[in-house]
Amino acid sequence: MAPVPKKFDYLVLGGGSGGIASARRAAEYGVKVGLIEEARLGGTCVNVGCVPKKVSWYAAWQRELMHNFKDYGFDFEYKGFNWPSFKAKRDAYIERLNGIYERNLESSKVELIKGRGRFVDPKTIQVGEEMYTADHITIAVGGRPRIPEVLGAEFGIDSDGFFELKELPKKALIVGSGYIAVEIAGVFNALGVDTTVVIRKAAILRSFEHFLGSHLMHQMKADGVKFETRDSVSRVDQDGSLLTVTTQTGKIIPDVDCLLWAVGRDPHVGGLGLEAAKVEQDENGHIIVDEFQNTSSKSIYALGDVCGKALLTPVAIAAGRRLAMRLFNKQKDLKLDYDNIPTVIFSHPPIGSIGLTEYEARDKFGAENVRSYESTFNPMYYALCERKVKTTMKLVCAGADEKVVGLHMIGDSVDEILQGFGVAIKMGATKSQFDSCVAIHPTSAEELVTMR
Amino acid sequence: MAPVPKKFDYLVLGGGSGGIASARRAAEYGVKVGLIEEARLGGTCVNVGCVPKKVSWYAAWQRELMHNFKDYGFDFEYKGFNWPSFKAKRDAYIERLNGIYERNLESSKVELIKGRGRFVDPKTIQVGEEMYTADHITIAVGGRPRIPEVLGAEFGIDSDGFFELKELPKKALIVGSGYIAVEIAGVFNALGVDTTVVIRKAAILRSFEHFLGSHLMHQMKADGVKFETRDSVSRVDQDGSLLTVTTQTGKIIPDVDCLLWAVGRDPHVGGLGLEAAKVEQDENGHIIVDEFQNTSSKSIYALGDVCGKALLTPVAIAAGRRLAMRLFNKQKDLKLDYDNIPTVIFSHPPIGSIGLTEYEARDKFGAENVRSYESTFNPMYYALCERKVKTTMKLVCAGADEKVVGLHMIGDSVDEILQGFGVAIKMGATKSQFDSCVAIHPTSAEELVTMR
Repeated sequence: MAPVPKKFDYLVLGGGSGGIASARRAAEYGVKVGLIEEARLGGTCVNVGCVPKKVSWYAAWQRELMHNFKDYGFDFEYKGFNWPSFKAKRDAYIERLNGIYERNLESSKVELIKGRGRFVDPKTIQVGEEMYTADHITIAVGGRPRIPEVLGAEFGIDSDGFFELKELPKKALIVGSGYIAVEIAGVFNALGVDTTVVIRKAAILRSFEHFLGSHLMHQMKADGVKFETRDSVSRVDQDGSLLTVTTQTGKIIPDVDCLLWAVGRDPHVGGLGLEAAKVEQDENGHIIVDEFQNTSSKSIYALGDVCGKALLTPVAIAAGRRLAMRLFNKQKDLKLDYDNIPTVIFSHPPIGSIGLTEYEARDKFGAENVRSYESTFNPMYYALCERKVKTTMKLVCAGADEKVVGLHMIGDSVDEILQGFGVAIKMGATKSQFDSCVAIHPTSAEELVTMR
Repeated sequence: MAPVPKKFDYLVLGGGSGGIASARRAAEYGVKVGLIEEARLGGTCVNVGCVPKKVSWYAAWQRELMHNFKDYGFDFEYKGFNWPSFKAKRDAYIERLNGIYERNLESSKVELIKGRGRFVDPKTIQVGEEMYTADHITIAVGGRPRIPEVLGAEFGIDSDGFFELKELPKKALIVGSGYIAVEIAGVFNALGVDTTVVIRKAAILRSFEHFLGSHLMHQMKADGVKFETRDSVSRVDQDGSLLTVTTQTGKIIPDVDCLLWAVGRDPHVGGLGLEAAKVEQDENGHIIVDEFQNTSSKSIYALGDVCGKALLTPVAIAAGRRLAMRLFNKQKDLKLDYDNIPTVIFSHPPIGSIGLTEYEARDKFGAENVRSYESTFNPMYYALCERKVKTTMKLVCAGADEKVVGLHMIGDSVDEILQGFGVAIKMGATKSQFDSCVAIHPTSAEELVTMR
């Protein structure tokens, strides 16, 4: 006899940022909420994404600053970096966060169901031997790193594996041109790893405003990162603890002790029973949703990385909360606006970007209606330093009133500079509204309100 | 026989940030411009203000970061700081800027007249033996540090003297509770100077939102700065190269090798001949201007610190440019809006502030119409550190639509975070418009768009 399903008002599949945010917000409205998660709470962001990445970025950033200390008059001796100690502290921090997330669920009265959920029909989910049913079900199971179909690919690791490294490698080969590739390459390189990045074309970060990738590549090269361009890995051979990597163009790269695939991410939909749920997917497996996060199956929703659009923690959180408010707080037209979402890449130096690239703006508004403002400068910090890390900022404006439709920048502090300008741009700010705010001197941010 | 005055369209008294900006902007419109400066170009900001202050702040900031390195796994030994080397490099940077300013004037075809100008009548200025006349004259001579009337005050230095220090003192006493006092105290303390601040009342930064001063004082104490509150200096005695400072309450502080007055700034109007120009001043000597920078004397204008309002470089620059555009480019209604000017204090950690304090908002809108949002947190950087430097951010909102009328914050990176939010606030942003911009994770700035 089949078990009687346990009934909820709202079930969320996946205890990452988006799922937890949606579940907790729903619970605020007094509905009965269950959240199904097989692994640690917090999903990609907390466990193998934003959080340990940013902490690693901080380590690398501090190591880079040390190069400038002598120029400022400091006498010091750098003796080394203890990766195992760093990793242990970073892991302990993540565990503290896992605990906070668990307590937050408890205090919100969201029931945590441990295991992998699988739809048996559009209203019923099986977890282990138990059955659960709900009026509304949200799929927020996230994504996973992609491993390419290459001979010996299994000898490499992915970004999840990066966070498990027990020792810092001596020689790392990173495959990929996206933000994960450049972020990890930046950390490795700053901490003394011989770092090479293999990219299929000539440029990195190709989906971003063009100068960002070229400026970053220039800086990474100046800092010692090597690039193998217009190439890809064709086979990987293991030789003891080391790898020999052969590329499509015939290069042989020996003695690699860390090969890292950063070639994309796939939706984590395996075994979910999406067919039984009648939930449609696109050709890459992403769940298809409309602007309200509705899937093709009534009362089933999806959000976050599993939908393949704007793979960012705060996007999943915002979509999850809005969905809960729409379903359980009568805010029937509420949805997330996917326009003008600010993004930061924690490269060295960091990148910040929002809105349209210059090309996109020209396509949309006509080249004659687009005007860009660009500024490149050495931040004052480097005034006393031999080593300079330039900042470049660009505003893309459209129309007679020069509405700011894009803002793209690379350089120290742009990660923190972007948010406020994001608010202004989302409000429809024009160039003259930027300029009407008095500059804050001396900062890098002031450059954005004084461009001519 | 009196010399024939040399005729200009526009004369600017003072080659600081405001004067230079106004002169150069005027010259863009083809008018004949002269600029009178007795000292180095760049004024307070470049020579004894923002620029060397920020460079010094960077030195102190780096020294503070070093305390966290061990927690991140770095094996790092600090051996000392070479102030003379640092000062020499900082001075060289300032000299490069002086040169750039001079070349900029040349390329703008602004004639530089070296000397102290003195009005002989409202249309004529004497510099040395020469006479100059112009249809329009702007006074932008700035301010100077105030030295109090205390017995032995001359044994102390002011902020100008801070930048001339050839050696780092061992024991510094700083008198004052404003931003200059806390900025200099922060630099001294971080670089290892035994630092005491003497303040007349119980709090620092009393003109700012209350929590900023209390949070900063708490952090400064945690970092080793001592405060003598509700006290002031009554006499100073010199004993060899050291000073003994006696306070109003009878405390005797011996062995001080740097006494620094940071008790305010006065307009630098001595010898300007303002009576001959018929230019009126307030009781503190500041030149009285209307919202268009007009003085009481026709075709004489004043801007910047000499007017005593919003003593900030970018304010003087913005006012100077707008004045030139009004006078020489037919933009007859152009003026600087003095509302919502963002300000940053380069304390440790820095402070950023714009708009109304909560009390000011209550006065203006009625307490029942004001709602504040506040958040205190440890930035992620400190997740691995014993030493934590908390960040606090506060939004002051008014009215049913919760328009953001004030933003006040203290913590790492707020100096760079503020500018974009300043643009949004100047545009009239509401709390919900803040929140409609997706957060950038993980940053400190995202806290401002996720407050509840």
